[in-house]
Amino acid sequence: MPGILGEVRALVTPAMDEALSRLSPEIRKVIDYHMGWRDADGRPVQRRGSKSVRPALAFLSARAGGGEFQGAVSGALAVEFLNNWAFLIDDVMDRDRFRRQRETAWVVFGEGQAICAGTALLTLAQQVLLESDSPTRLKALSLTMDTSARMLAGQTLDMTFERRFDYTVEESMTMTRSKTASLMRCATSIGAVLVGAEDKTVDALAEFGQCLGVAFQARDDMLGIWGTPDQTGGRPRGFDVKARKGTLPIALALNDEAHGSALREIFALPGELSQAHVERATELIVATGGREWTEDLARRMVAQATAAVEGLALPDDIRAHFGQLAAMGLPDDVAR
Amino acid sequence: MPGILGEVRALVTPAMDEALSRLSPEIRKVIDYHMGWRDADGRPVQRRGSKSVRPALAFLSARAGGGEFQGAVSGALAVEFLNNWAFLIDDVMDRDRFRRQRETAWVVFGEGQAICAGTALLTLAQQVLLESDSPTRLKALSLTMDTSARMLAGQTLDMTFERRFDYTVEESMTMTRSKTASLMRCATSIGAVLVGAEDKTVDALAEFGQCLGVAFQARDDMLGIWGTPDQTGGRPRGFDVKARKGTLPIALALNDEAHGSALREIFALPGELSQAHVERATELIVATGGREWTEDLARRMVAQATAAVEGLALPDDIRAHFGQLAAMGLPDDVAR
Repeated sequence: MPGILGEVRALVTPAMDEALSRLSPEIRKVIDYHMGWRDADGRPVQRRGSKSVRPALAFLSARAGGGEFQGAVSGALAVEFLNNWAFLIDDVMDRDRFRRQRETAWVVFGEGQAICAGTALLTLAQQVLLESDSPTRLKALSLTMDTSARMLAGQTLDMTFERRFDYTVEESMTMTRSKTASLMRCATSIGAVLVGAEDKTVDALAEFGQCLGVAFQARDDMLGIWGTPDQTGGRPRGFDVKARKGTLPIALALNDEAHGSALREIFALPGELSQAHVERATELIVATGGREWTEDLARRMVAQATAAVEGLALPDDIRAHFGQLAAMGLPDDVAR
Repeated sequence: MPGILGEVRALVTPAMDEALSRLSPEIRKVIDYHMGWRDADGRPVQRRGSKSVRPALAFLSARAGGGEFQGAVSGALAVEFLNNWAFLIDDVMDRDRFRRQRETAWVVFGEGQAICAGTALLTLAQQVLLESDSPTRLKALSLTMDTSARMLAGQTLDMTFERRFDYTVEESMTMTRSKTASLMRCATSIGAVLVGAEDKTVDALAEFGQCLGVAFQARDDMLGIWGTPDQTGGRPRGFDVKARKGTLPIALALNDEAHGSALREIFALPGELSQAHVERATELIVATGGREWTEDLARRMVAQATAAVEGLALPDDIRAHFGQLAAMGLPDDVAR
């Protein structure tokens, strides 16, 4: 969506600055660092634009719902804040020490500070919506609360996967839907809600985001096993296997009649997995057809997302953006 | 408030069960354990009633605002959820392993699960208010969001105190006001908000709770230094000194011209403080007059709280409850 990112940032940046100005100085320091606006000592650095995908989706959603970008500013902020809340908290929980080539906030400021700053963003997302002047703001607020509740449920389920290797594919799918796809669902529908679109339109846009979110995650799950460091921002190949994550291809393999028990045995080994074990585990996942299955899932989800908005009377440029976005969920490059 | 606790629980318990039923099974498990309703394996145990002080305050607030207990159920749930959110998160951040003679949730389920479960309660507090049928529910929702934002700011400020011993008494007071007193302020005013009391009444009740919250905390700060294990639920004497907490008497002593630098030297020692160092630090705090100062602060805050509601036309029983409550902030037993 390079065509609209300039416009998106021009609307989001001042509104975001205003919203963040109500945070306490101590929290603001963590947020400014996390966002890449200041260094650990509070000195301003060249702002690296965030990808702003979710705010952009909120704006497209407003246009798709018959309104204008301007009508979705509070929704764009809300999804951007929820997204960064999730980043801040996930990094603590996954013990990830780097994000976008920088040390993560909890490494710099401590776990407690990162968690409080993240939670402050969650609260701010809701305050911004409550104070918006859209007549349908309470519906948007309710959607956001429901989304954060889903994300928490998904994250909690995901954490149980670290301790047990008996989860089903359905449980992994529930986790994917709640933990990551629900935020995309919120982003693609909140703009339409805020401009007062009818339920049928909102529901179709929610389904679009939900399916696309699963497709993106399925593609990410493939990258987590077969992605090159080039494709994954420098992560070593197979890092999801090494971390014994409950991703979709791994859940499928763990439940495979022929190879599941061998994989469970590797996952049950104490301590960090050796490179040889990661490779053996990856072979087992391949042998179960986990790669093709996940690729196929991503394709089906992209198709289902596209179908969801097919019946909507969308402006041409919005339909084109949605088409490009859907294509980003296709796993062609991973599958090669 | 033994006289009304039965009525409070009869209103709160079913509403709370209904609200919690929307949480995912994984989150519910952590909450049920934390609340003391189930053991770590999910087996029901004899429910030990929580003290329910904050829900009781929300109900008294409704009566003080001219309404009935029933009008404040959503507010009572909200403050109870915020209170337990704070417990769950604080225990992780303070590395407290026990609460009410049981292992804390993070010890049993892991930090991530405790944090997600706590945050789910924060979200639930807001959902319950948004869905309440009070015509003034959005004002109550806004109050709750503002309260959680203050609590986060206070907790974040408190955490900076662990790393530096150059904070002022004013900073410690800001922390006290935001981290703990703000929730009591919310509890004593949210009921009145929900029953549609006029602003003047709401403001007076908010001031009552705010001052009382500072008094309770000042009393707690004294207990954290001079309380016997009997008074502190089994904690060793001087545990706040050992933990180098930024409580009010400690902040005062750190800023004392004569003894501040000696105390800072002890606090700057690496590792855990020895019993001898804790005793020496306590002597220094006493020498600065920190004990009398904190005791006096608690008394002044109790007086200010009482004065705040003096002008309100309160039902006799409510005024009596408020009087008893205010007396609970007096530090007589600690000061003896």
